[in-house]
Amino acid sequence: MFEAHFQTFEDPEAGVALAARLSAFREELARRKLTGFVIPRADQQQNEYVAASEERLAWLTGFTGSAGMAIVLAQQAAVFVDGRYTLQAAKQVDRKAWNIEPLVDPPPENWLSGHLVAGDRLGFDPWLHTSAAAERLAAACAKSGAELVAVDSNPLDSIWTERPPPPLGPVAVHGTQFSGEAAAEKLGRIRLEIVRLGVDALVLSDSHAVAWTFNIRGADVSHTPLPLSYALVPKDGRPTIFIDHRKLSNSARDHLEQTADVGEPEALTAELTALARRGASVALDSATAADALSRLISAAGGKPVRGNDPVSLLKAVKNITEIEGTRSAHRRDAVALARFLAWIDREGPSGTLTEIDAVEALESFRRDTGALKDVSFPTISGTGPNGAIVHYRVTRKSNRRISPGDLLLIDSGAQYEDGTTDVTRTIAIGEPSAEMRDRFTRVLRGHIAIARAVFPDGTTGAQLDTLARQFLWQAGIDFEHGTGHGVGSYLSVHEGPARISKLGTTPLKRGMILSNEPGYYKTDAYGIRIENLELVVGAEIPGAENPANAFETLTLAPIDRRLIDLNMLSADELAWLNDYHARVRHAVRPHVDEVTKVWLDAATAPLSL
Amino acid sequence: MFEAHFQTFEDPEAGVALAARLSAFREELARRKLTGFVIPRADQQQNEYVAASEERLAWLTGFTGSAGMAIVLAQQAAVFVDGRYTLQAAKQVDRKAWNIEPLVDPPPENWLSGHLVAGDRLGFDPWLHTSAAAERLAAACAKSGAELVAVDSNPLDSIWTERPPPPLGPVAVHGTQFSGEAAAEKLGRIRLEIVRLGVDALVLSDSHAVAWTFNIRGADVSHTPLPLSYALVPKDGRPTIFIDHRKLSNSARDHLEQTADVGEPEALTAELTALARRGASVALDSATAADALSRLISAAGGKPVRGNDPVSLLKAVKNITEIEGTRSAHRRDAVALARFLAWIDREGPSGTLTEIDAVEALESFRRDTGALKDVSFPTISGTGPNGAIVHYRVTRKSNRRISPGDLLLIDSGAQYEDGTTDVTRTIAIGEPSAEMRDRFTRVLRGHIAIARAVFPDGTTGAQLDTLARQFLWQAGIDFEHGTGHGVGSYLSVHEGPARISKLGTTPLKRGMILSNEPGYYKTDAYGIRIENLELVVGAEIPGAENPANAFETLTLAPIDRRLIDLNMLSADELAWLNDYHARVRHAVRPHVDEVTKVWLDAATAPLSL
Repeated sequence: MFEAHFQTFEDPEAGVALAARLSAFREELARRKLTGFVIPRADQQQNEYVAASEERLAWLTGFTGSAGMAIVLAQQAAVFVDGRYTLQAAKQVDRKAWNIEPLVDPPPENWLSGHLVAGDRLGFDPWLHTSAAAERLAAACAKSGAELVAVDSNPLDSIWTERPPPPLGPVAVHGTQFSGEAAAEKLGRIRLEIVRLGVDALVLSDSHAVAWTFNIRGADVSHTPLPLSYALVPKDGRPTIFIDHRKLSNSARDHLEQTADVGEPEALTAELTALARRGASVALDSATAADALSRLISAAGGKPVRGNDPVSLLKAVKNITEIEGTRSAHRRDAVALARFLAWIDREGPSGTLTEIDAVEALESFRRDTGALKDVSFPTISGTGPNGAIVHYRVTRKSNRRISPGDLLLIDSGAQYEDGTTDVTRTIAIGEPSAEMRDRFTRVLRGHIAIARAVFPDGTTGAQLDTLARQFLWQAGIDFEHGTGHGVGSYLSVHEGPARISKLGTTPLKRGMILSNEPGYYKTDAYGIRIENLELVVGAEIPGAENPANAFETLTLAPIDRRLIDLNMLSADELAWLNDYHARVRHAVRPHVDEVTKVWLDAATAPLSL
Repeated sequence: MFEAHFQTFEDPEAGVALAARLSAFREELARRKLTGFVIPRADQQQNEYVAASEERLAWLTGFTGSAGMAIVLAQQAAVFVDGRYTLQAAKQVDRKAWNIEPLVDPPPENWLSGHLVAGDRLGFDPWLHTSAAAERLAAACAKSGAELVAVDSNPLDSIWTERPPPPLGPVAVHGTQFSGEAAAEKLGRIRLEIVRLGVDALVLSDSHAVAWTFNIRGADVSHTPLPLSYALVPKDGRPTIFIDHRKLSNSARDHLEQTADVGEPEALTAELTALARRGASVALDSATAADALSRLISAAGGKPVRGNDPVSLLKAVKNITEIEGTRSAHRRDAVALARFLAWIDREGPSGTLTEIDAVEALESFRRDTGALKDVSFPTISGTGPNGAIVHYRVTRKSNRRISPGDLLLIDSGAQYEDGTTDVTRTIAIGEPSAEMRDRFTRVLRGHIAIARAVFPDGTTGAQLDTLARQFLWQAGIDFEHGTGHGVGSYLSVHEGPARISKLGTTPLKRGMILSNEPGYYKTDAYGIRIENLELVVGAEIPGAENPANAFETLTLAPIDRRLIDLNMLSADELAWLNDYHARVRHAVRPHVDEVTKVWLDAATAPLSL
């Protein structure tokens, strides 16, 4: 029927000779006079999605989660995972060889202090850790009288005989019709930031920052059009981009050479060393810059200055072209969403569909737009108890039938050249219970409170977070994730620095795009989440004493009316819902088939008390 | 008619020979080979209210605000004040001798860096600054190549010939009928905290902590029953209290000696030095401990460990006796408030009353309870434009007539032996404008949102703060102060560590008392604030998945119904208001005269749409 191109559902490999890998690794460590080694789930740039060539943790341990770490000592070995991956790790990892330990609270450093002994030499690859992470490891070693040793080459790579080559996704120019600002102008703004920081140069160690600055996109990792690369931007003079030349067509190279020199990735260390030898101070992004960069600058006599990459904030504030693009992308996505929601309403109650069927259908409707570049992350399609697993990813094994009486939580997004989308809807299959409706309505009220919020310029996401939770709190319940994250413009669906969460200390600025996604999860029963993307816009208020901002909702898809307990809504909330549904209908109706039109009219009809 | 005992209205002294004082001070500095000196508005314990003997800043500069600093250099001198005191400082300070500079943004350290030159020797009294403050001064000096010099004795005290003696307020025992817990038990809990901190001893440098621990109260500063004192609590063995023996009756001394040794204040340094010579690590409260304490511990070979005083959190969580006490205190205070509000409604519209009349009447009604120990701070009584000055304190000169068409903002509190109160009401004199009613109703909705909040155990004040502001934000307005502060139990009306503010990172615990006081201030026109005290209590919610808390409103006084725009209230908000007024009527009615009863019935009658 439908088929997914961008998402696969295979279970991770099992039964490979993991035990042999671990003993080979221990022998390699012994050859190098190391008594242990740290293997993070990370590449050189701390990317969320990493290339196959960087999946060292999975290769050695079998654990395929998106966050984790392993530590191998002479006698013990442990895999560290967070709460979402405890069960998965227990299945994937050989418990005779590995202990499973917490990744966060307490952190692996506590385990290290308890297991290292004086004289131990713990190795780590300084390209795979930030300096802050390396400092935490060093402190843990010092506590036990052990030594932390930065290796020149990764011992795991020496034994990984069939390691895949690094990705060579072709680079595409992201023209100003999408980016809205030429690279030369962006570089002018970045140079002002370099002056403000009082440094001689800035390293862009985050490929997203390189992509944004130079208006390019790539194809090196899944779901994000990222060209793996670095750049070095001096206070004066031409910047240099470091990127594998095999990824560049002539036109891409011509585009880049308009504003920058282009070097191979290996040239970065030489150029940084030359700069540092002249005593330069070099700004490094503390979130993504490898500890190796800081070490080589210091070793050559320069001064590494760690802090927040200033490009992160520049990139987060979208210009009018990007805003118009994202509005178009959302209108396009809305057509696919309406077709999908109509289809699931028709087919769902039969009880024959599965979670994977839903993923494939949604991707297929999105492909029908003719503009889909990729999904922006693997669709979360969870029905019944699977819906309560916040980071659920359906596989052939976990795939569950969608049955009447269940809720289906579907969280998905698309990459279009003009914008990135991210949307969650929770759909009643058959008749929902009164409890489900109560919970859904509380989540919806929180969602509406964010969508309707008006707030002074300078307000942070932390200040708004409670608005999304207040109605759940009244029932003694909550959700254990942030309310919203920043979203890129045909770039990462998770983009800093702003977010709506109690940790969100970045002021929200006009032009930022954030998700608004409160939820509720009843373990072993069902999950609820309602997610739209919101654009921060100015609020025009007669008599206002200070500049104020508000949200413009970008996502356009009906919210399931069968799950709403109308008696719980205030008049203002009901008015918001009816207005929103009228907007959805107006945007989508001209672009869908007759069957979907009939469904849409019913799904967006005004509600009244 | 009425008369205030606890509050005075005198304007600060003027015309004294301030110029002579400054030149004498400069001569003294020269004698001591100093090129400058820092004079904070602070005593040795960073108290909010300081004794007359500690008013060095006012004596030297004429500036009498509750926060500020002066820096005297050979050629320049500056007084640093925050935004609330800019106008007052301009009036009080001789502008030919002193510049007026900002206290907060930028801080005085910026001014210092710009005015010090290499070789300068800037003196400071390490007893009057915390270590963090001293470090900021030292960094500013270092930037200019100047030296920060800690003096052994304060050069200002050498020339202050008529300096008042330190206060000798008698110490009273605060019996367990009020405190609810014997000192010995409190010391047991403090020792657990000392063990948790891993130190050998704890210095109580905050007199509030001493008063709470040893169940004593004093009379050394205005409006807070504070016995100026220190204590040293070792991990094992008897603690020592350092307090002027002239303040102790035989019974107070007997009480203290049940759990502690009693020494004179001067003995603190000797005892700390002896402890430090044995290599002890000593915990110091970073908010109140003088830098001198840290220096003497280090100099004697001990280890000062700076952090949050653990007593602060223990003290903030009230026990059942303190809670019952504060409920009694609020019921008692409610009778005085009802009589006052009835009186102002009768007399106000005539246009003959003044702000001082209101203060005197309210204090008089409170004295009529027979239990008033003091007002808990100077009553803020501001009508018309004076109401818009957040920290307004009426004097004979500023005193304004209360006129029809004005709002009267009155923020006051009482010290009773069983509890401390703090309440603000805004009263319409005559007919309020539509704008006033709009603003008042937005403030009220925010106040109700806090009062009705239900939140998970562990929630901080920062997470609740926005609830109080949301309806003002919708109109493009806000208030420039926190939403609430902690309140002591017959102790300081401003008590840490919890608060409701975007800076409030302390989780709210059951038993804490916090103010709930959103406001709105229209410069040169009027001010609005509605303040009740709230007790954090457990919330009983059927089906709750996690422990939740809520607020019980302690303050019992009618909220002016004439200022409410009923059309702006939700059904839930209106229900809260009617319930609250029913509670007020029920608590107060049996205890007031017939005239007040008639007024009360009308003021608390249920409202409906």
